[in-house]
Order: sequence, then structure tokens, then C-alpha cells
Amino acid sequence: MKVLLVFAHPEPRSLNGALRDVAVEELESQGHEVRVSDLYADGWKSNIDRADFPWLTPDAQLVPIAASKKAFEANVLTEDVKAEIEKLSWADMLILQFPLWWFTMPAILKGWIDRVFAYGFAYGVGEHSDKRWGDRYGEGTLAGKRAMLIVTAGGWEEHYTARGINGPIDDLLFPINHGILYYPGYEVLPPFVVYRVDRFDEAGFQSAAERLRERMRTIETTSPTPYRQQNGGDYLIPSMQLRTELGDPGATGFALHLNGTDG
Amino acid sequence: MKVLLVFAHPEPRSLNGALRDVAVEELESQGHEVRVSDLYADGWKSNIDRADFPWLTPDAQLVPIAASKKAFEANVLTEDVKAEIEKLSWADMLILQFPLWWFTMPAILKGWIDRVFAYGFAYGVGEHSDKRWGDRYGEGTLAGKRAMLIVTAGGWEEHYTARGINGPIDDLLFPINHGILYYPGYEVLPPFVVYRVDRFDEAGFQSAAERLRERMRTIETTSPTPYRQQNGGDYLIPSMQLRTELGDPGATGFALHLNGTDG
Repeated sequence: MKVLLVFAHPEPRSLNGALRDVAVEELESQGHEVRVSDLYADGWKSNIDRADFPWLTPDAQLVPIAASKKAFEANVLTEDVKAEIEKLSWADMLILQFPLWWFTMPAILKGWIDRVFAYGFAYGVGEHSDKRWGDRYGEGTLAGKRAMLIVTAGGWEEHYTARGINGPIDDLLFPINHGILYYPGYEVLPPFVVYRVDRFDEAGFQSAAERLRERMRTIETTSPTPYRQQNGGDYLIPSMQLRTELGDPGATGFALHLNGTDG
Repeated sequence: MKVLLVFAHPEPRSLNGALRDVAVEELESQGHEVRVSDLYADGWKSNIDRADFPWLTPDAQLVPIAASKKAFEANVLTEDVKAEIEKLSWADMLILQFPLWWFTMPAILKGWIDRVFAYGFAYGVGEHSDKRWGDRYGEGTLAGKRAMLIVTAGGWEEHYTARGINGPIDDLLFPINHGILYYPGYEVLPPFVVYRVDRFDEAGFQSAAERLRERMRTIETTSPTPYRQQNGGDYLIPSMQLRTELGDPGATGFALHLNGTDG
């Protein structure tokens, strides 16, 4: 497979840097082709602003969605954004790797999403009518490709379990896995998460590295998280409510949007 | 009260800009004192990097948590970060206002959190032992103050309800409300959310503005979301698991961490 790994840590000599090297090495030894977008090393610009749309006249209002749409259609997105879109189109698989800062991704990676996931490319795709609400959540430009997260966390694994104080890790990552990756069409593999990384010793690293190698050996065969497709019949259109007969009757929240939870 | 509003939209002539003006005007007419951090207008630097820690020697590894700790203790955080910490210390209430981009805040606001919420200030506060896991989740530097979100979303409100395809808005915002605001001690008020903002007409705006004015008139009396305090006895320490006898027996996910859900 062709794999794009987007890396978002400021220090190459970090645990994240070491894990990235482990992942890339294992992927390549399996015959995969790997490209890395190293956001800090590349000096990635995080913030959507007028510089992204230099063709806007000075007195024109900046409406980010409208400007993104126009720039994508006219092929006048900035060169850095175009280069990332080219890589996403090339890759069969996307890996986002980052340290969990305040329970989500660092600003620099959010800024990569905000700028690269353009209107017409990652959203605003397909027919929008009272019958069909666009190609998203399982359909869209990136359908047929796979994606996964590699995440490091300072806290204990117990703190991120079903009854842990931080909330379950799968719920904390749902806005990313479902809302950012599944939305434009990716099949999303379960995340690879390492905990308590501030206290890592050599044995801890070797154990995490081996777990990561195993995940990298199975990127083609690991089953994706079974999110429900928007246009597969489970949701009413246009209200986008899960049909009342679906989902565990007592359940609420993100888990409803998984297949196989019907009561 | 003293209110700090942190504003994260690139266009002052946007709906967000208009709603900010409505909020500030109403707060001031109620006798509150308001300061605004306009992140785009101020050219806020989003990414934590070596420039945040110029005293690090060139060959020293950048460990963000350790560097943040040292800089806060030695009072050598950068001037822009110090100025924001000063505003947070001054304010009795914090409002974060932003458009929902990919189901969370724009990169520039995440970068404000990443850089301003320093170790020793917003995390790493208080005794850490097997009896007490720091002052966080209801305790900490910002305890006794209030916070809330003002959020605009392009999608329909139905898409963000209990059975809506995007997931419930309170769950999508939990990593911010609980993980970023409650964590360092804020009492968190229910968010103010406006939907379908891409199709707003004048009547829609007036209706949203009036709802917002009402919220701004009641910032001192609105009940905060009743998250459970970490050190109040509901959680086992150090595993930070909610005690088995608490919470609705069938429930999972973020809702467990609210008081009043015990079965």
C-alpha cells in the first residue's frame, strides 16, 4: 500500500519521533511505500486566514467555507495545501500521529485539517437534496482508503476507560475518527494509543514499539470500526436521525453510530 | 463580573463578529467589565515550538511538558502567553467563541489553549500522590471562576441531537468543556450554540442575538453543568475510576461524569 504519515510533534528526538521511525521502518519492511508530512519540520502554517485566498479583494469579506469552495474549484488553493491534497490522493492509507494535548490533537495538526480538508475535496461533496445529504460518513473523495491514529498520552490507561475520569478514549477520539476521518470517506482502523509516556523506560518503549510493529504489519487486514454509512438507510434524510428501531434502546451518544449495536 | 472573551474567527464582519459585539454590548450594559482577546487580529502564534522556550540550549531536547513547567516556575514564559495568563487571572469568567470546524475549535484557539494553559498554571497543580491526584476537575488555579462556549455550526440542530449523525453536541464539546475548562477548575455553563449559520437571514440573526443577550444577562445565575469533582469521593484514587455504585448502571461514556446520574 501507499501510506501517508502526518507527524505532529516539535521534537524529532522525542518518543513520538522514535515511534514514527518504528512505524515507517516496519511499513517499508512489509513492502509498503511511505511518505511523511512532518508538520513542524515543514513549518506548516496552521491558521486559515486571508493569506490562503490572496485573490480575495481587500474589501471582500472572508467567508472560509465559500473561499475554500471557490479556491478548490478554480484550483487556486495555496501550494502547500495542494501538495498535501496530492499526497492524500496518492495514499491508500493515512496515519495521523500526535501527542494528546488537552484531549485532542495539537494546534498544528488541527490547522492541517482546517486548511487541507477543503470544501469540494473533504466536505461539500456529492448531491445535496432532500433525498441525499452529500457523500459523507463513509462515502466521499477518500472512500476506499484507510486511516488510523497513532496517539501518545501522559495519563494512565485506566483514566481513559469506560468509567475513567477523562472519559473513554474511543469517545474522546470520536470527533476525529468519525467527524474528520470517516466523514470524507476513510475506513477508520482502531487507534494505536500509548499511555503514561512521561515515565517511559527502555522496556516500556520496546513493548510499545512491538505493539506498534504488529499494528503496522496488519494495516491491510485489521477490521475498520463499523461506523454506520449516512446513505445506507440507517438515517432519516434530511433530519439525519438514526431510525428509531436501530441502536440499543437504552443507548445514547457516540456508540449509537456503530453497526451491531441494534437492540 | 470581569469577563474575558477569547474570539477565534478570521473575519470581523462575520456572523461570529456580529455575535461577539452583541455579547460584549449586553455584558457591558449589565455593568460587567469586558476584555477581548481577538486571536486573529492579534496575530496569535498557534504552535508550541522552540521559540516558546528561547532559553533551551540548541542541543537540548524539547520536552513540551517539562519546558512549560520550567518556564512557568521561572516566570520566563513568552510575553504573549504571560499577558493571556494575566487576563485569565483577572477575569471572573471566560468565554471562548468560535465557529465549529471539523467538530471542534479552529487551530488558532487550540493553539491558545496549548500555549497559555501552562504546566503549573492549568495542569500539574497541587499534590500528586497515591491519595490525591492533583488539583484538577473542579479544583485548581481557576476554581471559583465560570466559563462557557459560544459556538456557531453550519449543520442542522437535529444532526447534533441524541440520535443525530454527528453525535450529540454536548458529547462533541465534552473534551473542551470537561477536559479543557473544568480541568483547571472552571465551573462550566451550558454552551450557547447557533446552528445552520450558513443560511442566516436577518430574522435568524435577530433571534440568535436575542437568545445570546438572554444568556449574557444570566451569566451569574445560570447553573453550571454538574460535573463530578475528582477529589470529592466519587472516584477511586489513583485509578480514577468512577465508583461502581455510582452512575446509571447501564450508562457508559461522558454522561457518567455528571452528578445526578446515579441509578
